[in-house]
Amino acid sequence: MGIVKSSGVTSKVIGQERTRHLPEDRFFDPDPTQRRMAMELYESVAHLPIISPHSHVDPRLFADEKTSFGTPADLLIIPDHYVFRMLYSRGIPLEKLGIPRRDGGPIEKDHHKIWQIFVDHFYLFRGTPTGVWLTDELSSVFGVDEKLTGQNAQSIYDQIEAKIKLPEFQPRALFQRFNIEVMCTTDAATDPLTHHQTIRKLGWGGKIRPTFRPDALLHLLTPVWSNHVKALSKTSGITVTSFKQFIRALEERRAFFKSMGAVATDQASETAYTSELSSSELSAIFKRALKGRANAEDAKRFNGHMIMEFARMSIDDGLVMQLHVGSIRDHNDFIYHRFGSNMGADIPCQSEFTHNLRPLLNKYGMDSRFTLILFSLDESTYSRELAPLAGHYPAVILGPPWWFHDSSNGMKRYFDRVIETAGLHNTAGFNDDTRAFPSIPARHDLWRRASANWIAGLVVRGIVDREDAEEMILDMAYRLAKRVYKIP
Amino acid sequence: MGIVKSSGVTSKVIGQERTRHLPEDRFFDPDPTQRRMAMELYESVAHLPIISPHSHVDPRLFADEKTSFGTPADLLIIPDHYVFRMLYSRGIPLEKLGIPRRDGGPIEKDHHKIWQIFVDHFYLFRGTPTGVWLTDELSSVFGVDEKLTGQNAQSIYDQIEAKIKLPEFQPRALFQRFNIEVMCTTDAATDPLTHHQTIRKLGWGGKIRPTFRPDALLHLLTPVWSNHVKALSKTSGITVTSFKQFIRALEERRAFFKSMGAVATDQASETAYTSELSSSELSAIFKRALKGRANAEDAKRFNGHMIMEFARMSIDDGLVMQLHVGSIRDHNDFIYHRFGSNMGADIPCQSEFTHNLRPLLNKYGMDSRFTLILFSLDESTYSRELAPLAGHYPAVILGPPWWFHDSSNGMKRYFDRVIETAGLHNTAGFNDDTRAFPSIPARHDLWRRASANWIAGLVVRGIVDREDAEEMILDMAYRLAKRVYKIP
Amino acid sequence: MGIVKSSGVTSKVIGQERTRHLPEDRFFDPDPTQRRMAMELYESVAHLPIISPHSHVDPRLFADEKTSFGTPADLLIIPDHYVFRMLYSRGIPLEKLGIPRRDGGPIEKDHHKIWQIFVDHFYLFRGTPTGVWLTDELSSVFGVDEKLTGQNAQSIYDQIEAKIKLPEFQPRALFQRFNIEVMCTTDAATDPLTHHQTIRKLGWGGKIRPTFRPDALLHLLTPVWSNHVKALSKTSGITVTSFKQFIRALEERRAFFKSMGAVATDQASETAYTSELSSSELSAIFKRALKGRANAEDAKRFNGHMIMEFARMSIDDGLVMQLHVGSIRDHNDFIYHRFGSNMGADIPCQSEFTHNLRPLLNKYGMDSRFTLILFSLDESTYSRELAPLAGHYPAVILGPPWWFHDSSNGMKRYFDRVIETAGLHNTAGFNDDTRAFPSIPARHDLWRRASANWIAGLVVRGIVDREDAEEMILDMAYRLAKRVYKIP
Repeated sequence: MGIVKSSGVTSKVIGQERTRHLPEDRFFDPDPTQRRMAMELYESVAHLPIISPHSHVDPRLFADEKTSFGTPADLLIIPDHYVFRMLYSRGIPLEKLGIPRRDGGPIEKDHHKIWQIFVDHFYLFRGTPTGVWLTDELSSVFGVDEKLTGQNAQSIYDQIEAKIKLPEFQPRALFQRFNIEVMCTTDAATDPLTHHQTIRKLGWGGKIRPTFRPDALLHLLTPVWSNHVKALSKTSGITVTSFKQFIRALEERRAFFKSMGAVATDQASETAYTSELSSSELSAIFKRALKGRANAEDAKRFNGHMIMEFARMSIDDGLVMQLHVGSIRDHNDFIYHRFGSNMGADIPCQSEFTHNLRPLLNKYGMDSRFTLILFSLDESTYSRELAPLAGHYPAVILGPPWWFHDSSNGMKRYFDRVIETAGLHNTAGFNDDTRAFPSIPARHDLWRRASANWIAGLVVRGIVDREDAEEMILDMAYRLAKRVYKIP
Repeated sequence: MGIVKSSGVTSKVIGQERTRHLPEDRFFDPDPTQRRMAMELYESVAHLPIISPHSHVDPRLFADEKTSFGTPADLLIIPDHYVFRMLYSRGIPLEKLGIPRRDGGPIEKDHHKIWQIFVDHFYLFRGTPTGVWLTDELSSVFGVDEKLTGQNAQSIYDQIEAKIKLPEFQPRALFQRFNIEVMCTTDAATDPLTHHQTIRKLGWGGKIRPTFRPDALLHLLTPVWSNHVKALSKTSGITVTSFKQFIRALEERRAFFKSMGAVATDQASETAYTSELSSSELSAIFKRALKGRANAEDAKRFNGHMIMEFARMSIDDGLVMQLHVGSIRDHNDFIYHRFGSNMGADIPCQSEFTHNLRPLLNKYGMDSRFTLILFSLDESTYSRELAPLAGHYPAVILGPPWWFHDSSNGMKRYFDRVIETAGLHNTAGFNDDTRAFPSIPARHDLWRRASANWIAGLVVRGIVDREDAEEMILDMAYRLAKRVYKIP
Repeated sequence: MGIVKSSGVTSKVIGQERTRHLPEDRFFDPDPTQRRMAMELYESVAHLPIISPHSHVDPRLFADEKTSFGTPADLLIIPDHYVFRMLYSRGIPLEKLGIPRRDGGPIEKDHHKIWQIFVDHFYLFRGTPTGVWLTDELSSVFGVDEKLTGQNAQSIYDQIEAKIKLPEFQPRALFQRFNIEVMCTTDAATDPLTHHQTIRKLGWGGKIRPTFRPDALLHLLTPVWSNHVKALSKTSGITVTSFKQFIRALEERRAFFKSMGAVATDQASETAYTSELSSSELSAIFKRALKGRANAEDAKRFNGHMIMEFARMSIDDGLVMQLHVGSIRDHNDFIYHRFGSNMGADIPCQSEFTHNLRPLLNKYGMDSRFTLILFSLDESTYSRELAPLAGHYPAVILGPPWWFHDSSNGMKRYFDRVIETAGLHNTAGFNDDTRAFPSIPARHDLWRRASANWIAGLVVRGIVDREDAEEMILDMAYRLAKRVYKIP
């Protein structure tokens, strides 16, 4: 086969050396007219500041000057379940990738070896968003333009390791370099927000904000639920022995989060089931739970009620409410028992919003003070349920494609199925939703490119004109996220 | 950013004036080869008469010479829930848009103000089918080629208002100008069809036909059900006090509709559940219902049986049966109580056809006298259930993409998921399904363009040849709808 | 309309004669850059041997020298439910197509007439995969390049009939000409594999392999279940009167299949429900079943347990496990009673994997000896459940798009929804899954073209480079199927 130059990708093979330049027009459709339009739209927003209203970055990175990214494996592999679950799926034990065991059992300690395994299997990421993000991140953050190979793995390890130690690669320096205007972390409701307090003292308060996440307090059946309630008593200063006190303590915590800069809350739920319970029923369930006697039906009804309770609180305090639906967490018992949660073993399931959210939306969906951002892992709900709900209820806004769908194709499906019915202004722009801080620019860049390409597709089809296209790309890249999350 | 001319769209900004010409090749894919082929296929059918076998246009428009379209707001906003639900979703109360309240409470009466709100928020419709239809309709029906802006809103209002008063903009004149060969309205089973009688006297009987819609008589649990049964007794001349009389009265009404030119019936149902009940069970349920004592299970079983009963009647009298599945009507109680039904608050839900329709199809699906046209709001059923059912059962035909899916992307998804399995000849061409009479040409034009583009995509991929493509576009634009609905 | 030459398709009309040349670049996207890349990738694998790890071809074709393909109707229509169900759906009785009735009732015997009906209705297959396969097969296997028309039907019949009789068109000759490296048939667990024994004696054992299919032994409620159990006793030599003996007999049969070259098993199930039962419960259910007293719940639980049991056996003997989920077989009772199974009346339904497979995957999903290949007819499960499961569990591999989805669009949807999350290496390459032996090259050719086009789309978007693309097309066309099915 002859040498073919694809758009912007050159692949030279000279001895063991390879260079790879990311194409300038990556992720755009190949038609030259659309591509040119996409490029112009992209360029108009490529350098706008990043709004990251929902991430899982550890705030310690910015509070504690001594926190470092560690080794290249610490940076790119060990904390990133997107990466190690793919290696695991092809038979590599998590121990060999240095993932800490709950029981402290033996794991690989040599990060050069972990890195080598990763690079030797990098072909598994062909055509995946993780492959794309890593390639972009290595190139644009760390200046690694060579393609990863078994041969160059260790020299690239050394390059990255050397960079990580430089002052300009420390978290706060990268935050500035990445041009992040605001980043919201996700923090347990019982978290004292110590790092956020430090961050505010450093004068960074408006840039890094906490998000109130009450999930651990809602799972009545987990053995540690009562510990979380105790922690709530402690941090709120309200001794929680009844449902009423529970509610008061949560309200107190929300007020504290808000005082620390929070603009939003975040909840995950297997289903979107909502239902309002009577106060006597709530008291009874709460008592049973405190005694460790709650059952599955109690847990479901309690969770369904609490979603409504948090909507009510959002109306009172103005915090934007995020609801993430449809992930079965810790599907693999062995992995959960050995390594814990967030190990790449969370599997989505079918979701239902139309019936499940009806009680909540009938009560609060028309309230102009309320913003409810919905996230789904079931793409069949996009055009069937979510877009029609967002296109009717004033409070409902659709979050961007989530998790497995935060990809080039996932974004395309989202645009094609959501916007015609919901309209762009009932969506929330982009979330990176990541633990991997250095991947943030790559993720927002993908979104901006995918958005530009999609809008360009509308222009070349005569569906919107150039003037509208320019407004739309600004909305998608920057303005919607800022408006919907009420970021000052 | 430099000035870029997208395909056919020019956007000139001179002072406050803007002109917008709809691109001739709108909705076509950008590849030049495909686009050229799409244009040729489209041009071969662009001027064919419109077959509109399922609409919700008010027949009074054509029966009563004094009926006028009213103001521009009466024409384009107040009756069109596609339009006002989007404005409502962004926080504009329906009262401000002049939507009549059930209680006669205060609403905006100044249609200039309503129009201004609409135009000020027209950006919400970017990338939506409503935006596309309105732009096309304003241009091709009313000659408004300027882009709507806050500044020109009132002068455009005046232009449209002046046009509406002209003789050539009266409903019958537009019907001729639109080149509509036949339009079927949707009429309650108890409707005396007074307007249709007038239309027939005017000699327009073959052009505007009623459709038999029994829905109100099937919802046992609504408080007004017994009123509808009384109305059925009155219009049929059969006093309905038993299930047998109920059936006889329905048959009588169908015969009357048929004598008035009806070719089809239309039913909506939350689910496709069918099940045949014994006559004793039916008698018992019907008696309970007359006494106001029917329960939810009764209602479900009764509806499931009646779908089968109507299939039996269709075999007897030859009326084509339409079944629309999957909309949860009046999801928002507040809006329903204040404004009533059809207020943009109908939300789709998951649907199931394979199990639910089995009783009906096993009994009637092989009968050559029977045509059952299925419509779904759950696109996941297209390739999974509907196309395989239509590709097997002689009686089953798939209706076009419905409601939220009657859009450029919705049509593309439908073609891509349905035709490979069902084949084109198990589909029913296009329905506009609209209350908005002046939008009919824009809707059929979108379908013809989307069809031409899809077929062109098959040709450039070598899947069909040019000769087949020419047959296919004729089928999609005209012949299928006429054949499937048995229009003489 | 002027004459237009589409890419590679020429349609000449000279008198009644038409010639149709399949375009060299068929199934590729029209953008010239992508198309060029797709062509180069395709050409690099077009002539690789075919790996067919899952087919329904009758092994008798290769064992019995006297077996012939029969007439053109015997070859292309009567055994192919993809073909005749489409004709049936448009009102042609199966009797007229020569489909044998169970009761031996009258059917059309004149194969010229059957052929004429088929050709007269060939327009029904426009845009369908069956249309594409047949056109390719007629051209590349039988040298028929004319487009089928009512006029040339009989002369083409004669051409094909003459070819079928030639030595070079006998099954073994075609097998060689098709360049099939290995083909796995599907064989009942109780099958003595007589034909496979002959094939092995002929020295073809490595090329044509059996697959162990236990389905008939798992459906407790069918009246013939006990006959199948008796057949199992007979072929295994183990008298089955208890569940333990049932398991031992199955293990014995698997060992025999393996000795005959089998590399895999195959199971179909309406749902993916799995659940492990106690041995006492199993004994009780099995006894009830032997007495003809098992109920629906027994049947469901037994099937759910047996899926787990077969996983356990696969770990023991190394046979790859295939699970096909979601088809409601014999949906049309009339057709089933008159003609039997596999009559084009199997209709898919909604499927669920996340909850249903959890017991199985928690027990066996981490075992490196185990390979479970999943097939689904519910495309909404691709991105929601299947790709995340395959992207986590080491044992889980996704089979290619199945049945109705084994088409140009079906493959595109599969690639777009599966690979980003699962990665290419958690998929199984291609299966043709066909009864129609002469269609095998056309089916693999479509897959290779669709794969090349999809990869080319990644290259032109800068998602993978040329070097990776060349590896990926080799994987998809050849290597993955061979590796996943453990073909020596």
